[in-house]
Amino acid sequence: MPNKIHNITGVKFGTASSNTRYGDKEDSLVVTLPSNAKLSGKFTSNKLRAAPVEIAIHNLSSLLKGEKVLLVNAGNANAATGPQGEKNTKKYCSAIASDLNLKEENIIPFSTGVIGEAMPVDSYLVAFRKALDKLSTNNWKKAASAILTTDTKPKIISKEVKVGKVSYFITGFAKGSGMIRPDFATLLSFVFIDAKISQSSLNKMHSEAIKVSFEAITVDGDTSPNDSSLLVANGNLEKSVNIGSSAEKKISDAVTEIFKELAELLIDDAEGATKKIKVKVFKAKSVDQAKSVAFTIAESSLVKTAMFGSDANWGRILSAIGRDETIKEINKIEIKLNGQPLVKKGYIDPSYSEKSASREMKKKEIFINVSLGMGKKEFEVITSDLSEDYVLINSDYRS
Amino acid sequence: MPNKIHNITGVKFGTASSNTRYGDKEDSLVVTLPSNAKLSGKFTSNKLRAAPVEIAIHNLSSLLKGEKVLLVNAGNANAATGPQGEKNTKKYCSAIASDLNLKEENIIPFSTGVIGEAMPVDSYLVAFRKALDKLSTNNWKKAASAILTTDTKPKIISKEVKVGKVSYFITGFAKGSGMIRPDFATLLSFVFIDAKISQSSLNKMHSEAIKVSFEAITVDGDTSPNDSSLLVANGNLEKSVNIGSSAEKKISDAVTEIFKELAELLIDDAEGATKKIKVKVFKAKSVDQAKSVAFTIAESSLVKTAMFGSDANWGRILSAIGRDETIKEINKIEIKLNGQPLVKKGYIDPSYSEKSASREMKKKEIFINVSLGMGKKEFEVITSDLSEDYVLINSDYRS
Repeated sequence: MPNKIHNITGVKFGTASSNTRYGDKEDSLVVTLPSNAKLSGKFTSNKLRAAPVEIAIHNLSSLLKGEKVLLVNAGNANAATGPQGEKNTKKYCSAIASDLNLKEENIIPFSTGVIGEAMPVDSYLVAFRKALDKLSTNNWKKAASAILTTDTKPKIISKEVKVGKVSYFITGFAKGSGMIRPDFATLLSFVFIDAKISQSSLNKMHSEAIKVSFEAITVDGDTSPNDSSLLVANGNLEKSVNIGSSAEKKISDAVTEIFKELAELLIDDAEGATKKIKVKVFKAKSVDQAKSVAFTIAESSLVKTAMFGSDANWGRILSAIGRDETIKEINKIEIKLNGQPLVKKGYIDPSYSEKSASREMKKKEIFINVSLGMGKKEFEVITSDLSEDYVLINSDYRS
Repeated sequence: MPNKIHNITGVKFGTASSNTRYGDKEDSLVVTLPSNAKLSGKFTSNKLRAAPVEIAIHNLSSLLKGEKVLLVNAGNANAATGPQGEKNTKKYCSAIASDLNLKEENIIPFSTGVIGEAMPVDSYLVAFRKALDKLSTNNWKKAASAILTTDTKPKIISKEVKVGKVSYFITGFAKGSGMIRPDFATLLSFVFIDAKISQSSLNKMHSEAIKVSFEAITVDGDTSPNDSSLLVANGNLEKSVNIGSSAEKKISDAVTEIFKELAELLIDDAEGATKKIKVKVFKAKSVDQAKSVAFTIAESSLVKTAMFGSDANWGRILSAIGRDETIKEINKIEIKLNGQPLVKKGYIDPSYSEKSASREMKKKEIFINVSLGMGKKEFEVITSDLSEDYVLINSDYRS
């Protein structure tokens, strides 16, 4: 948790419990946004898109003037629920819109939880209404907690960006500890900027941030029908950011940093993870190649189980690289683990020390550096190990 | 184990122990083949190719007249061992060639075991020489056992093909319980036919058989630097098979069947597996699409852990399909599990019964049938579940 969480003017949070899957744990979040807020949404690449995702995409493209409201529920993903799923989402969106005298298009829904079960709409609607009675700009921890499913703790990052005499605040939270994989994809992430920023600038910041954060982490290679990331600028007229200004650049960098830190928090809390593994691929022909090789290593079950077992099994790393389709020969490949030489010219580095490598493997953070010797591009992917607990958690999720 | 194992005239097996990694368990196999035998080899698609694979490929392309000898060792893969690795393989090949007064090109080496460790050549050479003193046409079980690493049991299939009054015998064995994935790939497979078959006909039989067997199974998506499949015709002049004859067709079909049965035995013995899962994708636009979707499902950690937990989690299956790059929309998708309806039109089938689905999930063999509703092609992949034991075995393999 950050030392200081900066509030974002006009952005308010309320939480409540639907008393469904998680008993009386708060599982429903309402966020209200000022009339002049701008919103940028990015959603799952999975063709199985949940009903709330379909509606969120539609509503974001047709936002009307006036206050905007985010409705987030945990426990039920409302995915693969067919036409009734869309009706259910629309039902509570339209009820809340009516309560607040807003257009339905200004209500943006997000869901996370079990796939394929009918949503207990009325229970969540009751919770959203309760949450609306408890709105506050301070409720960050409650908000970050209400969206959790298998996560073990809330994940919040907050930063202050100073440009001249003006302080721009940015605060966000995210959840997701499995089904995390690219084409971005954390399950849910919400980041808020205390500034007036144009839609195009906001979209650009969002795309750049996602590329090196949520698109660069993986737990198990699976994606979710509900993956959503929302970047909001509150439209604070006193903090107007011009396109091309140094303020824009600094805010954009801070947004990227916040996304990266949230992504790392997700990996730290990945299902059953005992280690964080950073796979960096250097000297690739292209960023795409570096990314492809890094993901092939990061998603290899044999590499991930070796990491769990604290085994510096460089043979499995090399074998995963050799399996990547972009690799034609392996005789220039070098691999280091926490600085220890493992592989040179495609086979064991003469200076390899089993003792030193084993010592490094006992650490909780592992850096695997791979040089392909083919070009100048690089990409880093962050992943977790594959533990018995991952299997236990995922073989028992629904029951 | 088959009721009757048919010997293959002139094909002899000897086994011995190198007294290295596995103590006094027999880990070294010598196979001698008649002078007029034909050999077809298929090897790993991994660009990290083990030294014995490089040499086997070279030697198979330059086979000389005279007896041929296969040398197989378990315990050390001699992969990622650099120039010294090739020298080591050549050392024992050339010693055995010299012992038998054969050309070095007629010795075909195969290795399986731990990657990246220097091979104890002299120990294996002693074992190969001992094995040569114990050659017999009957030694199938000993041969099938000597090549094992983490497998729990030997895998042998034997068949008789009758064409008119002639009986053609085919017998083979294989090993491999992890790192099994396409572009064929069982770790090691050896199948022998008691017939005279042309090289081109043999190669064709081999390619056809592999496509629907070792290229259609997966345990963890990883491939090995040592994956090798060898199909041998002993050249029995009394059982000559003409190109285009019905004998050729029947033998080819039996070879395919043997490969498929061996592939299933590998999955039955997959590391930590508690269930066998057959994923069949129907009504695809192309075989490639059907294969791609089937492998995406079969390699999803979330699907595999759900199977281990006996959870009919059709949401994860549908989500894996939605992640496949060849899928553009999901609204025609139907999924059945052991005949139980799970998904129709891309969401839960109205006739879905949790009770019936749960009953089926308790079985040891699971059939997942997916109709894409896009065309007429199909492909079946066989895989295993992902258990805690898989993680335990693979986090502890080297230590």
